[in-house]
Formats: sequence, structure tokens, C-alpha cells
Amino acid sequence: MLKFCSNCATPLVRRVPPGDNLPRSVCDQCGVIHYQNPKLVVGAIPEWDGRLLLCKRAIEPRYGYWTLPAGFMENDESTGQAASRETLEEAGARIELGDPFSMLSVPQVNQVHLFYRARLLDLDFKAGEETLEIALLAESEVPWKDIAFRTVGLTLKHYFADRARGAFGFHAGDIPPR
Amino acid sequence: MLKFCSNCATPLVRRVPPGDNLPRSVCDQCGVIHYQNPKLVVGAIPEWDGRLLLCKRAIEPRYGYWTLPAGFMENDESTGQAASRETLEEAGARIELGDPFSMLSVPQVNQVHLFYRARLLDLDFKAGEETLEIALLAESEVPWKDIAFRTVGLTLKHYFADRARGAFGFHAGDIPPR
Repeated sequence: MLKFCSNCATPLVRRVPPGDNLPRSVCDQCGVIHYQNPKLVVGAIPEWDGRLLLCKRAIEPRYGYWTLPAGFMENDESTGQAASRETLEEAGARIELGDPFSMLSVPQVNQVHLFYRARLLDLDFKAGEETLEIALLAESEVPWKDIAFRTVGLTLKHYFADRARGAFGFHAGDIPPR
Repeated sequence: MLKFCSNCATPLVRRVPPGDNLPRSVCDQCGVIHYQNPKLVVGAIPEWDGRLLLCKRAIEPRYGYWTLPAGFMENDESTGQAASRETLEEAGARIELGDPFSMLSVPQVNQVHLFYRARLLDLDFKAGEETLEIALLAESEVPWKDIAFRTVGLTLKHYFADRARGAFGFHAGDIPPR
């Protein structure tokens, strides 16, 4: 919860502004309304010779669990650029980006997770600062019980199912609260 | 640009935090890093008997220009809920949501625009506070020169092209700077 105005340092009040229908953090001194909105987490599903690149997380949340390379989209970039950048940062891996593959809302944490299909361009990957270890895994080798996030597990399941039927779709949905 | 810490009201400094690679607004008093990230704008393409529902904007930017019903995604909701809510708020219109249809990054304004296909459920729509006028328009009636945003124009073009060929896809891309 925001306590002070980032424009003038006045303590904020929580109130529904005129013409709005939700409470916002409002500054009665300078008039700025401080909206808070969901964030996009964007990543890739890098494939090499039938195997997928997964990263073992070196940071919380879910330290030590496995994930696809992904992270918060930054200002001044596109969703595709975010997917490639995160893959480079977390796995030191260069990819050729394919189509968007999954888009999953996680309203309980105010996030939307978006994953792109991708082709790994070479094997010169290297764990970044937020990664303990990288592995190229066949479907039979995926550590399903040690996947960091439900959006990653669901994306992997859709991916293997689509690949098995020989046609990749776009999978949109919501992750329900536990 | 953020000037003061929303947690403790101290003036912020702009600096690359340890382990990061981009300058952030950092508080040297309480240690909070204030990240800023792109926002999702979510909307719908409501169809009724071959015609699409468009809204004439009653607010800036692009006052008086035509748009699909859309707006900033809120915390605590999914992308689909955002599309339905915005359609209800701006056009008083009830829809049955279909598949995601377009996702367009607009990095120059730090936004990603997402539109869903939708079926208008009845004709009891009514302009909301941010709308001057609502119209149900056939393809030949779309005011192409008076469309509010490039993401809306591109989405409409993809929509009519897909409908003409009898198959709707998912269209992802970026809007280049002018």
C-alpha cells in the first residue's frame, strides 16, 4: 500500500475519485491519483533438439525450483523483446522467438504471465545471477513436482500436448486462487 | 518520474541497484526500489449480426475519435474480466467473451494492448461517462480516418481480414514509434 505521494511527499488517502468506481491512493495536496495495475511477466520456451531449457531459481520466491526463463517486462520494450532479454539474462541463452504460446492471468498476485515459443540458437548458455543451474530436458525428464510456478507447469503441459498432436495453439486462461 | 519514496517520503535517487542493469528510483532511507513497468490495456471486439460496437471517446487522449471498448486492467482481475468490465463501463454492453484476438506492444507509451473477440448479448447498450456515442458499424461504415489508436485500427483490419477468410487467428505484434 502506498503511504506517501511520489510527486510531493504528502501522506496519501484512500478514496474513490470522482467518476471512478474503485478506491485509489489519492493526494489531496497535489491532486495526483496513484493507480496500481497488474504487471506482465514474460518468458520463453526455448527448444533444442526436442528438449526444453529450464532454469533452477537462485532467488526467492521458489528458490531451488525449476522455471522457464521469464521476468517482469520493462518499460521501453515490447513483449517479444522482454522474452528474449529475460532468456539472455537468466540463462545466457540466445533464441529465435516464435509465436506467443500461453497467456495466464494470476489475479491473486496482480500478474499476467506470457510465454513465447522459441528456438535455442546454440548451446553456449550459462546460468545468470538469478539462476543456480540450467538444464535441457526431454518431456520425460521434467521435474513436475519441483516446478516453481503453476503458470510454468501449465505452459509446459500445453506445450507437450500440442507438440504431440503436431499443432501449436495459443493458450489463454486464469490461474485460480489455491 | 517518481520524486519521493511512497513508503517513507524521502527524496528518491536514480541509480542501478546491485545485481540489476537498469537505473531505478531507489530510496536510500528505507531501501525500497520503486520499479515501473508497462501497463496492460484490455478491450473487446463486440459483434452483433456482423456489425461491431465502437465507442466515440468523451475523454482525452483522442477525444471525439472512435475506439473499441478498452481500458487499463485493474489489480485483482483477469484479462478476460478486464475486457468484460471495460465493455460494460464504457458502452453499458453485456458480452459473451471469445478468444484473445490481438496483443500489440506500444513501447513508446509503456503499454500492451490486448483485445478479445466477443458476442454482444443484447442491444441495451448505453454510452458510459467516458463515451460520447456508441455505434454498431458494418465494415464499410468504419470511420478509418477517425480511429483513436493504431492498435484499434490494426485490430479491426485483422478482424475483417480473418472474418473474410473464415478463420480467426491470434495476432501479436508491435506498434513502431511514429
